[in-house]
Amino acid sequence: MTKVVALAGGVGGAKLVYGLAKILPKEDLTVIVNTGDDFVHFGLNISPDLDTVMYNLAEISNEQTGWGRLNETWNCFEELEKMKSDNWFRLGDRDLATHLERTKLLNSGLNLSEATTVLCKKLGVETVIKPMSDETIQTIVTTQEYGDLPFQEYFVKHHFEPRYISHRFFGIYSAKINADTRKIIHDADIVIICPSNPWLSILPILAVEDMKQLISSKVCVAVSPIVGNRALKGPAAKMFHEMNIKPSAFEVAKIYQGMIDGFVLDNLNSSECDLIRACGIIPMLTDTILKDKYSKERLAKEVFDFASQLKKGN
Amino acid sequence: MTKVVALAGGVGGAKLVYGLAKILPKEDLTVIVNTGDDFVHFGLNISPDLDTVMYNLAEISNEQTGWGRLNETWNCFEELEKMKSDNWFRLGDRDLATHLERTKLLNSGLNLSEATTVLCKKLGVETVIKPMSDETIQTIVTTQEYGDLPFQEYFVKHHFEPRYISHRFFGIYSAKINADTRKIIHDADIVIICPSNPWLSILPILAVEDMKQLISSKVCVAVSPIVGNRALKGPAAKMFHEMNIKPSAFEVAKIYQGMIDGFVLDNLNSSECDLIRACGIIPMLTDTILKDKYSKERLAKEVFDFASQLKKGN
Repeated sequence: MTKVVALAGGVGGAKLVYGLAKILPKEDLTVIVNTGDDFVHFGLNISPDLDTVMYNLAEISNEQTGWGRLNETWNCFEELEKMKSDNWFRLGDRDLATHLERTKLLNSGLNLSEATTVLCKKLGVETVIKPMSDETIQTIVTTQEYGDLPFQEYFVKHHFEPRYISHRFFGIYSAKINADTRKIIHDADIVIICPSNPWLSILPILAVEDMKQLISSKVCVAVSPIVGNRALKGPAAKMFHEMNIKPSAFEVAKIYQGMIDGFVLDNLNSSECDLIRACGIIPMLTDTILKDKYSKERLAKEVFDFASQLKKGN
Repeated sequence: MTKVVALAGGVGGAKLVYGLAKILPKEDLTVIVNTGDDFVHFGLNISPDLDTVMYNLAEISNEQTGWGRLNETWNCFEELEKMKSDNWFRLGDRDLATHLERTKLLNSGLNLSEATTVLCKKLGVETVIKPMSDETIQTIVTTQEYGDLPFQEYFVKHHFEPRYISHRFFGIYSAKINADTRKIIHDADIVIICPSNPWLSILPILAVEDMKQLISSKVCVAVSPIVGNRALKGPAAKMFHEMNIKPSAFEVAKIYQGMIDGFVLDNLNSSECDLIRACGIIPMLTDTILKDKYSKERLAKEVFDFASQLKKGN
């Protein structure tokens, strides 16, 4: 009966989403996914975070890499490499089918929400997955070495090695929240911010139209993507350093201050609880490292129970 | 020193082209390929005849099927089938790389001639291959059962089973001959019409702008795609029947009457030589069934020697 909306980026977010989908009735969970790292590659519409969430929920994701598909083959990619074509974004043969089908659906006139619904059905995913917007939003990362880089070039092509200076979301000011998505958020009781990169995965979602305001009346809990002083995946910790901030769960909580009521952080960060509490946020300590499906389910249950006990504006 | 231009469609044409490439210095041969069956599928620009000619010349074609690539795998296609997506055009994993690369090149602003040159280089093809035009030309086949069908739907999706009524080349009136291609044809001594479907592979090439006139001053030889009363591949013989014409090499020669000086037909059609001669066309009998690389080379040599002895307007 408690309606949950989860905000998620790629790998880390998808793991918690997997757990939430296991513990909640499917009609009570909606996942809103970052599309700021979507891009067009070889003419195909690629939505890496939507794919990662879908593949995780369909249990066809590659657990080793965290992205891409189980039992993947690379023959198309091998030919592209032989042709000395762009080879910085690895396109698996099976993964390609998703990009082909999405491109076909979008070309036929569907918006990204509709195309995502069709793809989920085709992949057997019953959880409702929504892109943060149907409009194109492009994350541009400004780096010391290369200036402006489209997100996937920063993240994949350059392995987030260039020094981060700033970023922006091109197209964000005209982007809208899909009407169905808006209704789902409106009807939600709890919002869970998954352990994704706050700047590059969660803030773009919150920047779409009046998303922040829509969420402001809900009980909102975030899960730290920083464990100890490291990010389990991706550039979050490195970005903190480059902003001259010591990476910590507390620093993540501060980013969400004013919006979240509770914050879930790893036992390794227990010393930060008082700082978090001082910001008006209730901390909850637990083991946030998600090794397997059991730990994903366990954390999902803990986060959901924690959120269920909170009231708005504790 | 004799400059040869070959006009070719897909499988049958590509076999003779392979032989010509083996016997002629690479600077003396240019292949002009039908693009009337090009189409956009899943957002990708697919040029089936260009691909078949390229793959044959690169010796990476599937000799069993006549189309597609050697050592192909079908994992992307398998996923599309699982998703119950369009599955009538089989997309191999390795073949996909060509479509991706072509789409990228065209999206980057290259025209089809330029994109083809780049692809040939990447695949190690040294023979010059030119599309008949850089503009989009779509062959539409009108059928009894389904009305108008885009060529690939007639040919691949419906296995050319629907009854042929007529066809047209959408876009043909505004299509132009690429300036480089025009110069090559202008400088050519001999034009060889490969054993491809006359209506669907060769006539579209001849219909582009002033192609017929450009060719009219050259010695021109065609090779029959009809052996006995059958087409070795594709719908040519079936189309003859549906036009209430008995399929024969002679009927093919008549289609090219006024343009060709010589006509190469199979020994099985020897009884048609007099009819062909009566049309003012010099016939040459040989074995036109191309089983292996030796027979391709042998036929190419015979056709070239035959054309070399002819004079315009015998």
